[in-house]
Amino acid sequence: VRSKLPKVGTNIFTVMSQLAMEHGAVNLGQGFPDFEVPGRLVQALEKAMRDGHNQYAPMPGIAALRQAIAGKTERCYGYRPDADLEITVTSGASEAILDAVQAVVRPGDEVIVLDPCYDCYEPAIQLAGGVAVHVPLDPETFAPDWALVRSAITPRTRMLMTNTPHNPSGAMFSAADIDSLTQLLRGTEILLLSDEVYEHIVFDGARHESALRHPELRERAFVVSSFGKTYHCTGWKVGYCIAPPALSAEFRKVHQYNTFCTFTPAQVAFAEMIEAEPGHYEGLGAFYQDKRDRFREQLLSTRLRPLPVPGGYFQLVDYSAVSDLDDAAFCRWLTTEHGVVAIPLSPFYGAPPQGQRLARLCFAKNETTLGAAIERLRGL
Amino acid sequence: VRSKLPKVGTNIFTVMSQLAMEHGAVNLGQGFPDFEVPGRLVQALEKAMRDGHNQYAPMPGIAALRQAIAGKTERCYGYRPDADLEITVTSGASEAILDAVQAVVRPGDEVIVLDPCYDCYEPAIQLAGGVAVHVPLDPETFAPDWALVRSAITPRTRMLMTNTPHNPSGAMFSAADIDSLTQLLRGTEILLLSDEVYEHIVFDGARHESALRHPELRERAFVVSSFGKTYHCTGWKVGYCIAPPALSAEFRKVHQYNTFCTFTPAQVAFAEMIEAEPGHYEGLGAFYQDKRDRFREQLLSTRLRPLPVPGGYFQLVDYSAVSDLDDAAFCRWLTTEHGVVAIPLSPFYGAPPQGQRLARLCFAKNETTLGAAIERLRGL
Ligand SMILES: CSCCC(=O)C(=O)O
Ligand SMILES: CSCCC(=O)C(=O)O
Repeated sequence: VRSKLPKVGTNIFTVMSQLAMEHGAVNLGQGFPDFEVPGRLVQALEKAMRDGHNQYAPMPGIAALRQAIAGKTERCYGYRPDADLEITVTSGASEAILDAVQAVVRPGDEVIVLDPCYDCYEPAIQLAGGVAVHVPLDPETFAPDWALVRSAITPRTRMLMTNTPHNPSGAMFSAADIDSLTQLLRGTEILLLSDEVYEHIVFDGARHESALRHPELRERAFVVSSFGKTYHCTGWKVGYCIAPPALSAEFRKVHQYNTFCTFTPAQVAFAEMIEAEPGHYEGLGAFYQDKRDRFREQLLSTRLRPLPVPGGYFQLVDYSAVSDLDDAAFCRWLTTEHGVVAIPLSPFYGAPPQGQRLARLCFAKNETTLGAAIERLRGL
Repeated sequence: VRSKLPKVGTNIFTVMSQLAMEHGAVNLGQGFPDFEVPGRLVQALEKAMRDGHNQYAPMPGIAALRQAIAGKTERCYGYRPDADLEITVTSGASEAILDAVQAVVRPGDEVIVLDPCYDCYEPAIQLAGGVAVHVPLDPETFAPDWALVRSAITPRTRMLMTNTPHNPSGAMFSAADIDSLTQLLRGTEILLLSDEVYEHIVFDGARHESALRHPELRERAFVVSSFGKTYHCTGWKVGYCIAPPALSAEFRKVHQYNTFCTFTPAQVAFAEMIEAEPGHYEGLGAFYQDKRDRFREQLLSTRLRPLPVPGGYFQLVDYSAVSDLDDAAFCRWLTTEHGVVAIPLSPFYGAPPQGQRLARLCFAKNETTLGAAIERLRGL
């Protein structure tokens, strides 16, 4: 079979999680929490099943969940999307990204991505026949260079994909970034896909600059989020897309013929949870900030140098004092020789920068797991 | 926004389910059961959540479920697929169909579909840039005319999509169909996508001719199924694709960047259920045959003429003694004036045949629901 995605192999998260198991290593690679889902959410899901909510949900998602998302969006970002026309529930943010790209990208269209970026962006673009145009973020701060983004725009540019808080770096868009982005897009027909799955994991009083806060952005944006990171259940795979009605209509055409709808009992459960415990997502930043701070403190006792983490649940570390291996080799060595799994940054790039000595550690783990990792990292 | 799917609207199942609600009609439209999920399955899912199976499943599905599917396939069809290389769990059969098409269909490729066919086939082909070539099934028996299929093959033909037991008609491939299909494909590079979601709902001792039984077919086939119909949980959205390693590898590249993985607790639950209660799916034919027979008997007291139903959970009825409306208008009228929702056949065709007077009724309902529908249908 001649492959349509010849460059795609098993992705780095799967490869490293497998290696973790083979070597009994502490897995700070693939981004998932090792603590529990809120009890109320589990109970609500159980009740939903027992109440008989086990058949197809409506294609855009159950009404109660779309209303709850609309309410939460208003409370958080001062804009209430229309639950009937603008919100679609998907089987994870990942489906939403593929659907959005498939909905609007045609063969030959260019889509600008900011490197490093999450590994599903480019294959989604390629499957639609589009071309990913890679623009590097600043190698130290991971901030966008908007002049560089501007220079990448051509008449074929159909979409720009952004991600704040950013995976893998944790960098967040500032108000100035939003101004630059707004000016950049003004007067063009370029669409925006804003990946905001870490929206509630932000630190030090910073404000998450959701595209939904900004009328000029949201009128051309697919804003994608999910509940996996917010409710410690990455395996539940419930995400959503918020977009203006015309874009939403095209998005739903793809969603309707992709998964059609998403696990009904979880939709019922999230609808209840969002309304009943807004404190959960409001408190998430503080919960993770505490983890970030402890972990950073402990890392300072190793030869790894932690970079600043404005948001998300990943800690980048500079390992150049430890090793001169490239990042893929280093992460493999760290797993097999020191029993700690990290994720290299090179798979997040179209063309990885030479000589970068950074690895990503996930700190969405209980203190015992993080302590065990630090113990081993002290041996470096 | 210029649409990539200009002909796609809200699909017929959604439209008719909405109309059902507005009119308080008995909904025999969209295909879903109104009875309960097996208790053991619900309990297994609850246990899985409480045991902490709430994070990302492995991309191809959890090993225990793939093993269970391999075992079941061997018991049912005498062929044991390799759980590591050939089986991928998806978020419903619908995702699996999109993934398979995206994996192998390129712009300009032709894909033969047999009309009437399920409404997600053509949009999936179009999104990949392919062209759906519609070949009609026999208008009375819904059997394929293999000579007609052969005449539709061109050098651009990439794939043939089949569906047995067939939605909407219930028709099933015979051994002779399999022979013809095998000869048709022999020596070509045409791939097969075999949609077998009603595999366990077969009647009168007939044998389900899974493509997996036949070495010459399975070596070129994506065989798609799901648990929604088998376990009365269409809203749980767990399906799977079985394909030989080379095709499976391409399939997984798409799945990896579409939903990546599927609701973990349900995977754990299905793995247990398949192994613990093979009697459930072995007895499903008898369970539904009883419903089919009663429903048919009752329909004979109305002016609708029921067609034979070899498999699946849909009953086609000829309404020409009642009305001369086309099928879309008839189903609307039946809902608004008589309080029973049926699905017209025309949305299942590229070009609907003129003068066909058939509607589809779902009999995956408890006897009270079916009785209430019959009561109303007697008023026609
Ligand atoms: C889908 S597995 C990858 C999980 C994740 O978001 C990450 O580790 O970056
Ligand atoms: C995804 S809604 C359609 C359900 C179904 O399979 C049918 O009614 O044919």
